[in-house]
Amino acid sequence: MTQDEARGLFAGARVARLATVDADGRPHLVPITFAAAGDMVWSAVDEKPKRTRRLRRLENVAREPRVALLADHYDDSDWGALWWVRADGAGRVLEAGDAAAAIALLTERYAQYRDAPPRGPVLEIAVERWSGWRAR
Amino acid sequence: MTQDEARGLFAGARVARLATVDADGRPHLVPITFAAAGDMVWSAVDEKPKRTRRLRRLENVAREPRVALLADHYDDSDWGALWWVRADGAGRVLEAGDAAAAIALLTERYAQYRDAPPRGPVLEIAVERWSGWRAR
Repeated sequence: MTQDEARGLFAGARVARLATVDADGRPHLVPITFAAAGDMVWSAVDEKPKRTRRLRRLENVAREPRVALLADHYDDSDWGALWWVRADGAGRVLEAGDAAAAIALLTERYAQYRDAPPRGPVLEIAVERWSGWRAR
Repeated sequence: MTQDEARGLFAGARVARLATVDADGRPHLVPITFAAAGDMVWSAVDEKPKRTRRLRRLENVAREPRVALLADHYDDSDWGALWWVRADGAGRVLEAGDAAAAIALLTERYAQYRDAPPRGPVLEIAVERWSGWRAR
């Protein structure tokens, strides 16, 4: 799969998964909504209840910026339609004051954000490498 | 979400994502098919083309057994139906000769494996902690 094809498939997905590494070197994994443009990906913290802004994914990225994102398509009745795309890159945390453009992109993309836009922080990932596989 | 509820939701999912950590401490992420029983999860290497048995996920687990698995449900039209479950545990590689029972479970679960059962190796994960979230 070419970088362009991988980038395009990823950008069209509605959900992705974010892997970070914690202070002990253990992988951490959460699903995310996101917006993508070129080699940049943004995801807001939108979990409820918002117990704390110091979510593990944000702590992890602040200490170890290398992250992996994955979007995939699974179809139980047609394994010929399967694909996945992985994006390896470097993440950083945009505090609310710096996240307006990212929040605008996310709000444009997900109707659910229109009533209650995320306030940030936003995780910004600069993708260094796209890779992927498709069954056909 | 209770451990039992998390375990049950995970076991019913058809696809999950596996996060491992590579030799440089970078997270690696792939989608997997799997079978689960209790606190054990098995996944066969079934990618095509099978360029090599030394896939990165297997190399990673052999060196750093701590892995994370994630199953999630996304519904663009109903964010009230969203859920995810994460399984943190320790993985090990079962070579083909030790993987017969796991392959039987996988073949039972996925019709596609019946014509062409995976031969192994199989990744076996002993889950130490189930966690999750659901919107309602």
